[in-house]
Amino acid sequence: MTEKVFAVIGTGAIGGYYGARLHHGGHDVHFLFNSDYQHVTEHGLTVDSHYGDYSIDKKQLNAYADTSEMPKADVILIALKTTQNHLLDTLLKPLLKPDSLVMLLQNGIGAEQEIAQHFDLPYVGGGLCFICSNKTGPGHIHHIDYGRITMGLYGEKQTTALDEFAEDLLQAGVDVEIDRNIIDARWKKLLWNIPFNGLSTVLNADTKQMMNCNELVELSRSIMGEVQQAAQTTDTLIEDALIDAMLTNTAKMKPYLTSMLLDRRHQRELELQYMYKNAIDMADKQGVSMPKTQALYQQLCFINQQIKNEG
Amino acid sequence: MTEKVFAVIGTGAIGGYYGARLHHGGHDVHFLFNSDYQHVTEHGLTVDSHYGDYSIDKKQLNAYADTSEMPKADVILIALKTTQNHLLDTLLKPLLKPDSLVMLLQNGIGAEQEIAQHFDLPYVGGGLCFICSNKTGPGHIHHIDYGRITMGLYGEKQTTALDEFAEDLLQAGVDVEIDRNIIDARWKKLLWNIPFNGLSTVLNADTKQMMNCNELVELSRSIMGEVQQAAQTTDTLIEDALIDAMLTNTAKMKPYLTSMLLDRRHQRELELQYMYKNAIDMADKQGVSMPKTQALYQQLCFINQQIKNEG
Repeated sequence: MTEKVFAVIGTGAIGGYYGARLHHGGHDVHFLFNSDYQHVTEHGLTVDSHYGDYSIDKKQLNAYADTSEMPKADVILIALKTTQNHLLDTLLKPLLKPDSLVMLLQNGIGAEQEIAQHFDLPYVGGGLCFICSNKTGPGHIHHIDYGRITMGLYGEKQTTALDEFAEDLLQAGVDVEIDRNIIDARWKKLLWNIPFNGLSTVLNADTKQMMNCNELVELSRSIMGEVQQAAQTTDTLIEDALIDAMLTNTAKMKPYLTSMLLDRRHQRELELQYMYKNAIDMADKQGVSMPKTQALYQQLCFINQQIKNEG
Repeated sequence: MTEKVFAVIGTGAIGGYYGARLHHGGHDVHFLFNSDYQHVTEHGLTVDSHYGDYSIDKKQLNAYADTSEMPKADVILIALKTTQNHLLDTLLKPLLKPDSLVMLLQNGIGAEQEIAQHFDLPYVGGGLCFICSNKTGPGHIHHIDYGRITMGLYGEKQTTALDEFAEDLLQAGVDVEIDRNIIDARWKKLLWNIPFNGLSTVLNADTKQMMNCNELVELSRSIMGEVQQAAQTTDTLIEDALIDAMLTNTAKMKPYLTSMLLDRRHQRELELQYMYKNAIDMADKQGVSMPKTQALYQQLCFINQQIKNEG
């Protein structure tokens, strides 16, 4: 086991789950809380998990309301929603060592590059979490199922820190897959997220309802084709067979409400910058247009504006 | 005044209003009713109009439930919603003379060509009604404002019957404008209808809400650009200035609920074939693609399927 300091920025459904797992594995984990801070100092952190419940007593919990009071960390997990990424400018700085490994457990694309350049950091990576987990109350996380992380570094950098972190996760009971190029993994996740998160949100529909309409399946396929073309601009090859397989699997899935539709229903701001705008802009810079994706993004901007106006 | 027989197929907000006007002008008008038939045979037809109320007593009203009982007509006004156009196959035949003038008072594009070819008719035309009128009950129409018709024939045909019909309408108090090429007029109406009917329906929003979102204005402009390109395939020239003017006027308008959004809210089938699919197909045949219009159409298909499933 490594003797590292771990920091979790954003202790919600994702950050709370993986941070508690690492703590359970015997690691030195420090958690940043926002609105739940007072509550966890009195009641600790509770994870009801599919793999066995786990709590961190208030005396054992390294809880903070401010990163400037946290120790500098070897591994920093960022589990904010991307709509909060503008806060990283101030949140991240106090935690950084010259060789900190910063891992973004977030949706979308483009954030690793942004963080790496903004802070001039050598080791920024991303993790795609295939997990079913919710925050059900202050300091209370309900982990329903799954939990695998696909992770990799941004750019051509190599560091043993990533392999060590993977080892720590595995030892703490988290299934990990390393994809050396995080951009590839991110495009492949966007291949599903861009059509299904957006269309389900605009049409207020679950995946089953969507897959029952032939025209909407064709629209989804067509948007996936745009993502496939966009991915090529970063040398990410997506086979047609992957699109077919995703559509076939989605048709077989139980009715599923996407995270963005849940955000809409709970009047939470939508993750449009990293899930849509960055992808469209990256493609556009290489002369690849994504007209149907852009139309969907523009509709989502309208819905997001309504959410913000009503919030 | 001409001594013509007029037939109105579809005596609702549009057909009832213009038919009653012609009747008021002293013409021989025969009305086809559907669900209102029994009621009008007992109570007649009532039009509460912005330009003065007008009723047709049950004894004066030529009401029918079946076109096979109607006299053959010189001028046939078709005022069904286009979602009912499949019924014309049987409805129209009994009314036709070799030189009947068939006028489609409907939205969208492509129906004149279809009717002209299907029945091998020389004189098929269209009328675009700029009118605010509702059916408020059986045999009861509330005409709120406006009423101008822009009309023209399909194809290169010329007939004095169109001018005579225009004269009859004018004399009956209806403002008429003749646009020799009905296709031009239809594309120009679609220029607004395609973005605003569709987007308002998908997003459940009025025009004011839509125009307050910059991204949605850009999407509307971009869809209008696609309609502009599509119109060129039938040699209809739409100037950029018309797009700018329509957007400027829409921004100034009082909040307006489009007819398609009202159809959605009342769970009525949407007019997708003539307002979207025909336009997309016409352009596609000439190698012009309308990706954002098509994405919108595919979303509307989903909503329409929900309406039909719940109906």
